[in-house]
Amino acid sequence: MSNDLGTLKKSDVAIVGVGITPFGEHWDKGLRELVIEAGFAAASEAGVRGRDIDLMLVGNMSGGMFAGQEHVAALVADFLGLNPTPAVRVEAACASGGVALRQGYLAIASGLNNLVLVGGVEKMTDVGGGWATSVLSGAMDFEWEAYFGATFPGIYSMIARRYMHEYGLTRDQLAKVAVKNHYHGSFNPFAHYRNRITVDDVINSSPVADPLRLLDCSPISDGAACVLLTSAENAKKYTDTPIIIKACEQASGTLTLFDRRDICTIDATIDAANKAYLNSHISPRDVDLLEVHDCFTIAEILALEDLGFCEKGQAGKMYDEGQTYVGATLPVNTDGGLKAAGHPVGATGVKQIVELVKQLRGEAEKGRQVSGAEIGLAQNVGGSGATAVVTILERGD
Amino acid sequence: MSNDLGTLKKSDVAIVGVGITPFGEHWDKGLRELVIEAGFAAASEAGVRGRDIDLMLVGNMSGGMFAGQEHVAALVADFLGLNPTPAVRVEAACASGGVALRQGYLAIASGLNNLVLVGGVEKMTDVGGGWATSVLSGAMDFEWEAYFGATFPGIYSMIARRYMHEYGLTRDQLAKVAVKNHYHGSFNPFAHYRNRITVDDVINSSPVADPLRLLDCSPISDGAACVLLTSAENAKKYTDTPIIIKACEQASGTLTLFDRRDICTIDATIDAANKAYLNSHISPRDVDLLEVHDCFTIAEILALEDLGFCEKGQAGKMYDEGQTYVGATLPVNTDGGLKAAGHPVGATGVKQIVELVKQLRGEAEKGRQVSGAEIGLAQNVGGSGATAVVTILERGD
Repeated sequence: MSNDLGTLKKSDVAIVGVGITPFGEHWDKGLRELVIEAGFAAASEAGVRGRDIDLMLVGNMSGGMFAGQEHVAALVADFLGLNPTPAVRVEAACASGGVALRQGYLAIASGLNNLVLVGGVEKMTDVGGGWATSVLSGAMDFEWEAYFGATFPGIYSMIARRYMHEYGLTRDQLAKVAVKNHYHGSFNPFAHYRNRITVDDVINSSPVADPLRLLDCSPISDGAACVLLTSAENAKKYTDTPIIIKACEQASGTLTLFDRRDICTIDATIDAANKAYLNSHISPRDVDLLEVHDCFTIAEILALEDLGFCEKGQAGKMYDEGQTYVGATLPVNTDGGLKAAGHPVGATGVKQIVELVKQLRGEAEKGRQVSGAEIGLAQNVGGSGATAVVTILERGD
Repeated sequence: MSNDLGTLKKSDVAIVGVGITPFGEHWDKGLRELVIEAGFAAASEAGVRGRDIDLMLVGNMSGGMFAGQEHVAALVADFLGLNPTPAVRVEAACASGGVALRQGYLAIASGLNNLVLVGGVEKMTDVGGGWATSVLSGAMDFEWEAYFGATFPGIYSMIARRYMHEYGLTRDQLAKVAVKNHYHGSFNPFAHYRNRITVDDVINSSPVADPLRLLDCSPISDGAACVLLTSAENAKKYTDTPIIIKACEQASGTLTLFDRRDICTIDATIDAANKAYLNSHISPRDVDLLEVHDCFTIAEILALEDLGFCEKGQAGKMYDEGQTYVGATLPVNTDGGLKAAGHPVGATGVKQIVELVKQLRGEAEKGRQVSGAEIGLAQNVGGSGATAVVTILERGD
């Protein structure tokens, strides 16, 4: 099996710059404009010029199907003025951003690179909703799931139905995930949706795939996010508030839902989280806030359990008790999550990190800043759980 | 700028197993069957089981556009029985395989991983030729080239026309690239085309984009290739004939042809090659054979010059003199190259490595084995030159 990264890594890794575009419908910007905007913002924060960057990684799920554009990393490097620096596109469906971050983390941790720019981007709204749903189906097993008509709302509705049957989760509890995320999103100027909603709004919104309603589903969004990485010992050259990546771990699971030992559990999340806790010597009780992959409301419920923040079947109660709001015991998705902040699929894994960095620096907007936050955890999922990335960040000062 | 990898790497990297499918039209196999066949072959050669592998990398250009399937690395890991091992898809157009190899090389060189399986795969023949050409256009700048009707035969025809004007390359010299590659391919049981052709055949084949004819163009193919990597010190556990990766370097250039300082030169090849020579202390005169990216005949001409095997404008003469045949001074594309062996785009960069390994082990078929080969070099190009990867291999015993 793998070496223990904790004993092998040559240096701790720090985030010294972040950049993000508003998420939403960008009729005036294409894929390249979005990621360049975020990339310049991240580099500018750190006072870094293109020639200083020695590796570019770009998480992008489907530039080809959404925009006819593959070879995305070379495009981005070219337009950011980075040539001849190597540029690598990484794809793992909706976990593309998280996997790109991990490749960048390893490049610094190993001592191979000095300054790595990691971007995530998706431009989804140039195609119709039906085509977008087909493109997203490429994240499941095309031949054994999508070909027979499965869509992601359908896949997650089966998980939700089974979970409600097994553990007694109520329709109201599920709705409260979306209500909380829209509330947090209302304070986030970069969020796709900033409107607040009620449990009744969710329950009475259009049916999508029973029991999931429209307001249980994350939207189709455009957007990009970037983070700039260097070693912890060099971090102070670029920022007074470096944020340290204490762990960044990835695991794989079955692509098809029907191959799972239990469709109410994402084993890849458990595997990645356990390695992250082990390597960082941080446990769930140390964590001040979470960014989790709420592509559908049920996914946030699974995440809290699979990450070890409550017993199996108990997450619903946390929503009745309001525990996941900013100001309560465990703030979850303080930027609005995928549901309200938006879900440009290749960008999401990097956006989660941008949000945690802002929170740990104490720079989030009033209403959603977690007071005194020191440790944050992000969970990014591809497909219905074939890829999961768990990252733990800590304030470096 | 980047650290010098030569001084930082913790271990030399060895290739201890290779696997490849025949290239061609596989009506009975999909993307997953192809890469699994190659992956099992590579692991079996080394006597390795799935649980021993601690990272999977897959180079694939456009599973989405060709087969509706993104999230390709998780799919491959799942069907190879590797879960929960991390699996990362890497995309850089036709250099996807080379970039995947490089990520695997760095994972071993840094000491982060013990045993890495690197695959490349493309399944292209399930769609029509017109759609395939559109998909491949995703490797260029979609908005500034493809949108206006540019195709890759068109792009490379402009390069060929300009080169013939500048340096007096003749139509016969260009044809001799394809004639030589088909001759080599006739000895390769895995080649898409094994028929021998003549200069007249090339010149009289159907026009595609003047001056390029059908037999100047590599075909649309299905296929997969895999290599298994470990550290040089562990290599003897798995094989008696380890092949050492002396260098594996990547560089980026402009995506659009019109932004180049000179359209007859691929600067990314020069940049990657110079770093590879520097880090390996190997120079062109030490190299016994080459695998270069002959997506079109003119591309092989550029490669020999950009890699430093002759002066600018002089490569055509090497073909008049037969220097690039097996048995002559500098054998090039001993498996038939992209032209005759075939070009499943995501697989090509890994296939080049499989061929060099077979040659350096002395295992290539009669008629194409380079006698006493000790050092081989591979050049893999994405698009018209926005990404280039140059790899140098040496026999380890």
